[in-house]
Amino acid sequence: MNAHAKIKYWLEENRQRGTRLLQQLVQEGSIRGNESSAQAVIIEKCRKLGLSLDIWEIGKDQLIKHPAFCSDRKDFSGNPNVVATLKGTGGGKSLILNGHIDVVPEGDRNDWDHDPFSGRIEDGKLFGRGSTDMKGGTVSLLLAMEAIIMLGIKLKGDVIFQSVIEEESGGAGTLAAVLRGYTADGAIIPEPTNMKLFPKQQGSMWFRITVKGRSAHGGTRYEGVNAIEKAMIVMTKLQELEKLRNLRIEDPLYSKIPIPIPINIGKINSGEWPSSVPDIAVIEGRMGVAPDEEMKSAEKELEQCLKEAAQSDNWLKKNPPQAEWFGGRWLPGDLEQDHPLMTVLSESFEAVKGKQPAVEASPWGTDGGILSKVGNTPVVVFGPGVTEAAHDVNEYISLQEVFDAAEIIALAMMEWCGINQ
Amino acid sequence: MNAHAKIKYWLEENRQRGTRLLQQLVQEGSIRGNESSAQAVIIEKCRKLGLSLDIWEIGKDQLIKHPAFCSDRKDFSGNPNVVATLKGTGGGKSLILNGHIDVVPEGDRNDWDHDPFSGRIEDGKLFGRGSTDMKGGTVSLLLAMEAIIMLGIKLKGDVIFQSVIEEESGGAGTLAAVLRGYTADGAIIPEPTNMKLFPKQQGSMWFRITVKGRSAHGGTRYEGVNAIEKAMIVMTKLQELEKLRNLRIEDPLYSKIPIPIPINIGKINSGEWPSSVPDIAVIEGRMGVAPDEEMKSAEKELEQCLKEAAQSDNWLKKNPPQAEWFGGRWLPGDLEQDHPLMTVLSESFEAVKGKQPAVEASPWGTDGGILSKVGNTPVVVFGPGVTEAAHDVNEYISLQEVFDAAEIIALAMMEWCGINQ
Repeated sequence: MNAHAKIKYWLEENRQRGTRLLQQLVQEGSIRGNESSAQAVIIEKCRKLGLSLDIWEIGKDQLIKHPAFCSDRKDFSGNPNVVATLKGTGGGKSLILNGHIDVVPEGDRNDWDHDPFSGRIEDGKLFGRGSTDMKGGTVSLLLAMEAIIMLGIKLKGDVIFQSVIEEESGGAGTLAAVLRGYTADGAIIPEPTNMKLFPKQQGSMWFRITVKGRSAHGGTRYEGVNAIEKAMIVMTKLQELEKLRNLRIEDPLYSKIPIPIPINIGKINSGEWPSSVPDIAVIEGRMGVAPDEEMKSAEKELEQCLKEAAQSDNWLKKNPPQAEWFGGRWLPGDLEQDHPLMTVLSESFEAVKGKQPAVEASPWGTDGGILSKVGNTPVVVFGPGVTEAAHDVNEYISLQEVFDAAEIIALAMMEWCGINQ
Repeated sequence: MNAHAKIKYWLEENRQRGTRLLQQLVQEGSIRGNESSAQAVIIEKCRKLGLSLDIWEIGKDQLIKHPAFCSDRKDFSGNPNVVATLKGTGGGKSLILNGHIDVVPEGDRNDWDHDPFSGRIEDGKLFGRGSTDMKGGTVSLLLAMEAIIMLGIKLKGDVIFQSVIEEESGGAGTLAAVLRGYTADGAIIPEPTNMKLFPKQQGSMWFRITVKGRSAHGGTRYEGVNAIEKAMIVMTKLQELEKLRNLRIEDPLYSKIPIPIPINIGKINSGEWPSSVPDIAVIEGRMGVAPDEEMKSAEKELEQCLKEAAQSDNWLKKNPPQAEWFGGRWLPGDLEQDHPLMTVLSESFEAVKGKQPAVEASPWGTDGGILSKVGNTPVVVFGPGVTEAAHDVNEYISLQEVFDAAEIIALAMMEWCGINQ
C-alpha cells in the first residue's frame, strides 16, 4: 500500500469522525464577535494532534496601524486567532493551510428550512451557516494533517495550520498572523471553489457615496432637488464604469466569467417621508479589483467617475457626490498559473479525481490577497463547496467534496513539503 | 365708523392678545397623537366667546368604513375634534371656517435656530412648528369671529368654526366632522396660500412600490438580479408618467406652476450589505391628482405605468413591481372661479389690500377635498403664510398677514352670511 492508498483508506475509515467534527464546528455558530467557542473546538483538535499551538488575541498597535488593516471592530478580546504548526524534519518547503472561522450572519431564520446552526445531514450534504464558507474547507485541512500524522508520514517542511478570525470583514485575522511572522513558501486556502484551482482572486473594497439634494414639499417638488434622482445619475455612471473596467480584462482565466470585476450597488437609502423631496441619498457597494490592479488606482477610477457624473449635471456640479472607502477591503491575489504550487495541486487533484482540475480566477477576495501581497507567500485558493451556497440560506456542503479535498491536500502536502523516507 | 372700519380698529387694538393666542397654540406642540393640549387652548377660547361647542373623539365605525377615510392611526382617544358654532339669526348662508390643529414633526431639533415650539417673535414674525401650517390661519379665523362678536355684529347665517385633527395624515378629522353633519353653503380653509385664493387644490395620495430582485454575492453579481437596478427602470418610467400627466393640464390657473401634479419619489430603501446583491427595493412617494381627476383613475394610471415598465424588462416581466396605496390621501378640490364665495372673498381682499388677489391652484391637497367632494360644501383655500415655510425648519409666519387675513375673513363672513341691521 503506497502513501496515497493509505491516506485514501484512512479517510474512508474516519469518515464519521470527520463529519462529526464539521458538525460540531457548524453548531458552534461563529458570527463576528462570537468566534471563541468554534475556535475552542479547533484548539482541542490541534492539541490532540500534538501540534505546536499559538493562540493570541489580535488587535495590537502594529496591526491597526498597518496600511492593509481593515476592520471597524473595536474589540477582538476573547476571540483569538489560532495557529498550529506541524514541525517538519527540515530541508523541505513550508506550507500554510489557512481557514477562517468567522461566518456571515444567518439572516432571517424563517427563510431557512431548518435551524441555521443545526449541522443537519441529508443526502450526503451537511447544512448550516459556515458549512461551505468555510468550515468544510477547514475540516479538509485538519483531516489531511491528521491522516499524515496518524499514518506516521514525516514531512520535511513545516505545515502551518491557521484558523483565523475576521476574513468576512476584511482579513484582519490573517494580517495579524502575517505580522506575527507566519509566512511560508506556499499557502492553500480551501475557500469554496467548487474544487477548482484559483491562482488569481478578485480583490474588492466597499464604498459609500453620498449624494445631496434639497428638500421641499412633494406637491411643489420643483422647489427642491430630489437626491434619489441625482443618485440615479451617479448609479448610471457607475454602471458605465463597470463596463469600461471589465472591457480591459483580457486574462483568459476570466473568459468564462460574465463580469470579472463587478461594481455591486448593494444598498441605497434615501428619504424619510413619501411626500417630501429627499435631500440626501446614500449608496453603498462593493468594487471588484483585478488581480493585477492596485487598490489605490481602482479607488481613483471610481472617484474620477464621480467627478464626471458631477460634470454632467448642473446641481451635481455645485454639489459633487462624495465617496468614502469604509468597511470591507480584500487585496486581490495574482499567482502565475505555472507556479510550482499550482503544479503540485494540479497533480494531486489528478491523482485523486482522475482528471485535470479546472483553473479559474475567483470572483471574490480572500485572505489570499493579504498572504501574498503582505506576507509574500504564494497562494492557491482551492476547496470544497460551491460559492452560490455561501452567504445564502440553507447553506450546505457536500461531504464527499470535503473528503476529496482532504485527500488532494494531503497529497499536495507530501509533494510540497517533501517526505522523509 | 362703518363695520369694516370697526373691525380694522378692533384688530389693531387686540393685536397683542391675538399674537399671544398664536404663541400659546404654537407652544402647545400638537404633533399627531398629542393634539389635546392645543385643542384645550381652542376650546377655552371658544367657550369665552360663548360659542356652542361640540367636542368629540373621532374614530367610530361610520368614519372608518367610509371610502374617503384614510389613516393608519389606531387610537384617536383623548385628542378630540372641536367644532364651535356661532348661530346666525336665520335667513343667511352658512359658512364653515376650517383649520387643522395637527402639525408635522419638527425633524432634527439641531437644524432649528431656536426651540421648534418656542413661539419666539422676531421682526414681526412668529416662529415655530405649526405657526404657518396652520395655527396662524386658525388664529385669523378666531380673531375674525371674535371681532364680529365683540362688535355686536349679528350675522344671519351660521358660522361653523372647526379645529380638526389628522389633516397632515389624510383628513380623517374633517371627514369625521362632515359625517357628523357639518356641511355648509361655503367654507374657507386658511392654509398658508401666501394670501392667494386657491379655488382648486391638487389632490394627492401616497404609493409604495415593491420591486423584486434575486440576491447573490456582489463578486458574482451576475448570478443575481439587482433590485436597485430594476427600481431605476421603474423610477425612470414614473418620471415619464409625470411628464405625460402634466402635459394634459391646460387649466390657466396652473400656467405659472412648473409641475402642476408632481409624482414625488420621496423614499427608497434597498439592500442590507454592500457586497450582496439586494433582492428587494421599496420606493415610496406621493402622486399629485388634478382638481378634476378621480383618485381611482390616477391610481389606475400609475398601475398601468408599472405594467409598461414590467414589459420593458425580461426580469420585471416575470416579477412585476407591485403598487400599494397607503398612508396619506387627500382628495383634490375644484371650485369654479366665478363661484359667489370666490367673489365675496375677492371683494373682501380688495377692500383690505386695495388690489385684486392672486388666484391660483394649490400645489397640495387640503381638507378642502373632503369638504367639497364628501360634504358638498364649496371651498376656497385662502390664508396667511408661505408654503415654503410649512414643514420646514425655522417655520414662521408674518403676524401682519395673520391680522390681514382676519380682517378679510371677517368682511367675507359679513358679506356671505348677511347682517341683521
